[in-house]
This record gives sequence, C-alpha cells and structure tokens, in this order.
Amino acid sequence: MDKFDPAVANLLSASDARKAIESGLLDSQELVAACFTRIDELEDSIAAWAHLDRDQAMAQARAADEFRRSGLQIGPLHGLPIGIKDIIDTADYPTERGTVLHQGRQPTRDATLVSLLKEAGAIILGKTVSTEMAVYSPGKTRNPHNPEHTPGGSSSGSAAAVSAAMIALSVGTQTNGSVIRPASYCGVYGFKPSFARISCHGVLQQSPPLDTVGVFARNLEDLALIADVLMRFDGQDPAMAPIAPPCIGKVLNQQVPAEQHFAFVRSPVWEQVEQETKDGLRELIDAVNERRQKTVDIVDLPAPFAELHEDHRKVMEADLARNFADEYERGKAELSEVLREMIERGQQVSAGDYDNALAKMLDYDAFLEEIFDEYDAILTPATPGPAPVGLDATGSPVMNTIWTFCGTPAINVPLLQSAEGLPIGVQVVGAKNDDARLFRCTRWLLDILND
Amino acid sequence: MDKFDPAVANLLSASDARKAIESGLLDSQELVAACFTRIDELEDSIAAWAHLDRDQAMAQARAADEFRRSGLQIGPLHGLPIGIKDIIDTADYPTERGTVLHQGRQPTRDATLVSLLKEAGAIILGKTVSTEMAVYSPGKTRNPHNPEHTPGGSSSGSAAAVSAAMIALSVGTQTNGSVIRPASYCGVYGFKPSFARISCHGVLQQSPPLDTVGVFARNLEDLALIADVLMRFDGQDPAMAPIAPPCIGKVLNQQVPAEQHFAFVRSPVWEQVEQETKDGLRELIDAVNERRQKTVDIVDLPAPFAELHEDHRKVMEADLARNFADEYERGKAELSEVLREMIERGQQVSAGDYDNALAKMLDYDAFLEEIFDEYDAILTPATPGPAPVGLDATGSPVMNTIWTFCGTPAINVPLLQSAEGLPIGVQVVGAKNDDARLFRCTRWLLDILND
Repeated sequence: MDKFDPAVANLLSASDARKAIESGLLDSQELVAACFTRIDELEDSIAAWAHLDRDQAMAQARAADEFRRSGLQIGPLHGLPIGIKDIIDTADYPTERGTVLHQGRQPTRDATLVSLLKEAGAIILGKTVSTEMAVYSPGKTRNPHNPEHTPGGSSSGSAAAVSAAMIALSVGTQTNGSVIRPASYCGVYGFKPSFARISCHGVLQQSPPLDTVGVFARNLEDLALIADVLMRFDGQDPAMAPIAPPCIGKVLNQQVPAEQHFAFVRSPVWEQVEQETKDGLRELIDAVNERRQKTVDIVDLPAPFAELHEDHRKVMEADLARNFADEYERGKAELSEVLREMIERGQQVSAGDYDNALAKMLDYDAFLEEIFDEYDAILTPATPGPAPVGLDATGSPVMNTIWTFCGTPAINVPLLQSAEGLPIGVQVVGAKNDDARLFRCTRWLLDILND
Repeated sequence: MDKFDPAVANLLSASDARKAIESGLLDSQELVAACFTRIDELEDSIAAWAHLDRDQAMAQARAADEFRRSGLQIGPLHGLPIGIKDIIDTADYPTERGTVLHQGRQPTRDATLVSLLKEAGAIILGKTVSTEMAVYSPGKTRNPHNPEHTPGGSSSGSAAAVSAAMIALSVGTQTNGSVIRPASYCGVYGFKPSFARISCHGVLQQSPPLDTVGVFARNLEDLALIADVLMRFDGQDPAMAPIAPPCIGKVLNQQVPAEQHFAFVRSPVWEQVEQETKDGLRELIDAVNERRQKTVDIVDLPAPFAELHEDHRKVMEADLARNFADEYERGKAELSEVLREMIERGQQVSAGDYDNALAKMLDYDAFLEEIFDEYDAILTPATPGPAPVGLDATGSPVMNTIWTFCGTPAINVPLLQSAEGLPIGVQVVGAKNDDARLFRCTRWLLDILND
C-alpha cells in the first residue's frame, strides 16, 4: 500500500481501506471519523443521509477494532462504513421509506442483507435517502457533481454518498432504474445483480418479480467486494433459489478464455437517448474497435421488445397498487401525485393483462439468451443523458427497464462526460446468473480502454 | 486424483468426491447411486435413517449435474449427499424428532442450516435417526462396528451413517454430548463448534444456552469443509452475534506459528473413565511427548469445576421442562421414563437456581481462558470408554458436559481402540470462537502422530 493520510481515509477505495485495516495501518475508528469529517463538510449541500448516528457508528468501529486485535478471522468488509438505502430494514436505525407515512418507523429486525454486512464486519454508518417509497418523487438529495441537478433515484443518497466520498460502499435497490440511473448521474460504479440473487427479506416490497437489491462503489473491485458478501441464498426470500454464490472477486481478475465480444444494443427507446450520449458511446466503441478489431457489433433487439416497457409498467404499477394499498388507503393525501397516479393506474390493470405481461418475461429472456450465445455482454447507455437540471424529478429510467424486466445483471461504468462536465454511464449487461463473468468482461473492457 | 470405481464412490472422502465432481470424473448421480447401494446393503442392520427418499435425492443429484454443465460457479458441497438429524426442519422431508408425538410432522420451511447446505450444492439425502427429542431414549440405530452396541446419541444416525460409509458428511446437534459421544462410539470425526456459531433456527429447541449444531465426517479436511458452509451468522437465531466466518479450511493447512502445546485435562469426573481409555490416552500422550518433548502437560481444572455437571443439569432440565411442556401435557404417556423424569426434575428447578447456574458459565469460562493463555488446546477423552453393549441406552455424556456448558469448540478424533476392536475417541478442545485454530492444532497433532 502507498502511504496515505488517515484523516482522509474516506478517499481510499474499500479494498485499499480493508487492506490497511488488516495490516494495522488504519483502524476503523480513524476511517469512520474521516467519513464523518467529509459528511460534516458536504452534507448540507448534498443531503445524502436520512439517518446518521455518529455515536452508534463509532461504537461499531470501536468494537471492530477490538475484534481485530483478538487475532480472530476478520470479514471481507471488516471496519468499512456502509450506507443503506432507507427502504431496507435496520434494527439500529429508523427505516422511513422516504415518506411521512412511515415517519418514525423503527424495525425490530435487520433485513437479511444487513445481517450479511454485519457478519462481514461492516459498520452500518446510517441510512441513505430514498425517493418516496423508492418510486419517483424525489427526496432531498442533490447531485455531488452539480447541486442544481438531480442525483437520480430512487437510490439517491446511496449513489450521492459514494460519489462524494462520504463512504466507499452503499446499498440500493432497483425495480426499474433505481441503481443504474443514479450511478450514471453521480458518476459511480453501480451493480444490479441478476434477479433474486440478493435477499429482499426485510426490504420494502414494490414489485416482487422486479425488485432487485444493488450496490454502489467507486471502482469495479469494490463493487465485487460487497456483491460477494450480499449474493447469498436466503430461504426467507421466496423468489430465491439455492444457487452457489458467484465468487465475483475470484473470477474478476481471471484471464478471459478468449477475446470478448460485445453487442451494442440501441433498444426500442433509442430516440429518447440524447445526441451527446450517442456520440460519446459511438466514440468509445470506435476506440475499442480500433484497439481490438471487431470487439463491438451493433445488434438490434427483435421487434417484440417494443412492447416491453408497457409490460413492465403493467406489472410494476399493478404491484404498487397491491403493495402500497395500505399507504393509499390511510394516507392518499400524503402521497405524491406521481405515485398516486401510478397506484390508480395499477388498480385498473386486469389480472389477465398482468399475467400476460409476466409470462412474456420468458420470451424476452429467450431472445436475450440468443444474443448471449454470441456475445459476452451488451453495451448500452445507462441513462439517456447526464443528470437533468432540477430537483423535482429524478430523470428517466427508460434505459434500465429492459434489463430489470429480464433480470439480467447490469453494471454502470462511469466512462462518459457531458459538455457541462456531468458524468454519463455506460451500461454493461450480462447473461442472467452469470454475474461473475459480467464483471470479468467489464474489467477486460476497462483494460482495453486503459491500454 | 487416483483412479476410483464410481460404483463405490461412497467410500471417497467428501473433499475427494467434490474434486472428482468438479473435474467431471464423477457425477452426483453416480455418487448418490453408490450411497444408496451401500444403504441397501447395510440399512437393515444399522438403521441410521428416519426418512429416505431415493427419487427425491436422485432428482436433486440430476439437477446438480445439470447445473454443473452450465459452467456457473458450483458450491463447496456441490453434488455431495448429506444426512440431516431428524430434529432439524426440512421442507422436503418429515421431521419427527424421534418421537411418536411428532409422527408425520412435515415442516413447511427448511432450517437455516439446510438452506446453507442447499446453497453450497449439497444433496439432502434424508433424515437420520435421533434419540427421542434428542435426549437419551434411543432410536433404532445400531453401531456399525458391532450391531450389539449402541451408536451413542442423540445424533445416532448421523454418526452411524458416516461411519458405515453410506454418506461422507452429516449434521447433528449437541446439548450435552450428542455429537462428540456418537462420533467417539462410531469411530468418526465429530465437531461441535463454539456456541452459537451455527444457526439453530429451525432446529428443535431443547436448551437455548446449550444447544449446538455439529457435524460428522471421516477426516479432518471434510469436517472443515462442511463446518465452513454452516458457520454463518443468522439474524433469526437470537443467540448469534455477527462474527466473521472462521475460514477453517484456509487456516487448517497453515503452518503453525510455533510448536503446539496441549493440556491433558482429566476433569472432575475422571473416576468414571474406564481403565482402557486412560491407558490408551496415556500411551498416546507418551508417544507425542517422545516425538516432541513437553508437548503435553497434565493440567487439573480448578475445584469449582466439580459443580459444573450439576449446573448443566439444572439448566438443561429446566429448559427441557419449559420447551417440552407441550409434549409433556399432551403425551406424557408416550414419553420415555427417562425423559419424563428429566422434565419433572426440571419443573422443580427454581428460577434463582437456574440463573445462578447460568451465571457461573462466565466463571468457568474465565478459568478455561487461563488454560488457553498457556496451551493451544486441551486433550481429554471423548467418552469414558467404547460404546457400551446394548441398545437400551446411549452411553454416558459425562466427558462432554464441561465443553458444552462452556461453549468451547471440540473435535472427536478417532485415535484409540478397545481390546474388542471398538473405537474410542480423543477429544481436542479449543478456546471459544477460535475454531479454526483448533482445527489447525488438531492437524498438527495428527501430523506428529503420523511422523
């Protein structure tokens, strides 16, 4: 490890901080203190946190440092502070789900994913801001790259806090574009795993066939570090099957067995992509193809994909109507107009339409499988453009809907920049359940670009 | 790997079978078929199984083989058949707890530990015989070394099935001596981890401050393999704390930092140990000390330990009275006399006596910590002697009570033999929560003996 100043240990990657802690160069209390210094400095302008408790966090850090001195095995996230989206239950902090309707809500038990983080030695630093019920109506968070722009949503605070180096790792969720979009807008790495590979037990239920827990970090290795901790089977999540953990960290740095090939997918919503994003991605692809001939091909999704966004809408809105029925009944007036309208549209979706839309998932999957038979991964924009100006909306999730609906793993790689200097993400999508190879393939792409 | 005959793949260690499966030399269906051939041959005389379902097991094996061909990461127990004690809930098999009072009981959900085994790729072959409610009254199982002798209890079937090479790995539980004792009698390796390091969620509750899940195998490496899968934090078990997994398999083969030292502890119940066991252990210690001078010292436990067995009895029996109140109320006549008497004695234990006994755990722990400051591990007999003749009792747990009450990890190492040719185990005990070092230290001892 290079020398570093413990006072700014918040700037370290999670992997480097973990190494420094293991070797005794840094202790968790110093790291947590550095994170709070940064938070003190920036929280007023960024507002990434819904709940923070310095004493609680320092007590966890102290316990972690004591444990390390015992000489017992320490976990992969030992002593590292983590931010948790405020729709994920924590026994030590309130979980208010971005709405006054759940103000003061204090879970008695941790979500399974929080237990996994604690087992791995993580410090739960606090809860990060979510949009209202993890849907569209924004929270208080601002984009660290420009406070007049949205950070994206719904995992707004998780993306912004990592972007602002308040923490190195955080957890969010995605039911449409809620991990990849804020990652793109905030210029950080974001990972939405294959569907049902991180437990949703103890996480606000929006739409069970779509809800997916994801993670944020400032580099790919860190993303793998936290993903490996969280991607564990949990019998309490009825969507999960007992599949072996993907061991992403191990696979990530393996030699690829052959040159990798990418399908550049424009998708049926290509007309919504801004020219700046199109140009940036085109340049990037050209740069890759210059270095390695024929690495990236243009591939069009077959015609039926034109219906996917509408299928997704039916499923998500019908599920919102069902799962948020209680909030709608007792507090309709407290809900944002956008959510109220979604719920009301959802109430009108017939069971037949809902089931038809769900059934089409398999058809879409089959099409994608054909692409993945030929290509290692898909390249596509993570968002139509950079974070829009204004804090009254969180931008469009339109580039994320396909990959959420199909349950394929996706990584946001912060590779592009707008003329204004705002980040724009490139989305790399892999075959379902092949999360580890998606990481390896993404690393290979980054190696090419850095060549 | 050496060449082997798939028809007798049941004779392979779990570690070797796993390697053979990974490299494609063996498939899980062949392995499971070999196990069933062995079971067909021996089950009539050994009676290790409470529930077996060949079709169900073969279907799991088929799925495992298909999954392996997908090229995705496979788990550490991929394709390996496991036996589960019949007090541990399984959604795929009844869980009858060794009593007619729970005849036909079919859990709807797996215990957490079963979920962990499935995630690791294990085949749940069936449920193994437990004594009545995991206490003393024997089930139908016989000792594979001599069917006229008890296999020990309460994890009778789990120990016998591994001993008879019907399976390579199994799971049991210990509240007094129920893992280490049957391991000693059946001549297999048994491991009772530190208290609260394997989830008891979904396991019959006898005495929450004592109940400990343990494992059986035919060598130390296999024991580590399954222990690493199971030793995971589970927020559903209120006794557990989020401690990092011990990574036993990694530590097991590490060089020891210095010559290891053992305390030979005779314990306050030494007069109950048979002469044959005393002589055998004495010889073994002499052999070790001959090879490495001063490796083993005789250490006596301080006087207060004379009360520990009585403290354990109070806690366990009071808890049995409470936790088995329903069985006692509705089916007293169906309970064995021995269990009925324990429950009735337990009903008489006052809250004050119970709390006093529990409070003394800390005092005992403090004494043991002093020993572990000086010694790497404790050596002591696993049972007073070999398996007693007769099937109406399961032998004495008296050599296991201290280590259960103190929550220290213990391994049965099948090193001794009676004149009749029955196995007698040596118990190696480590410092609490230092399970990985206990394994490494035990391996070092075996290396010395094999020198």
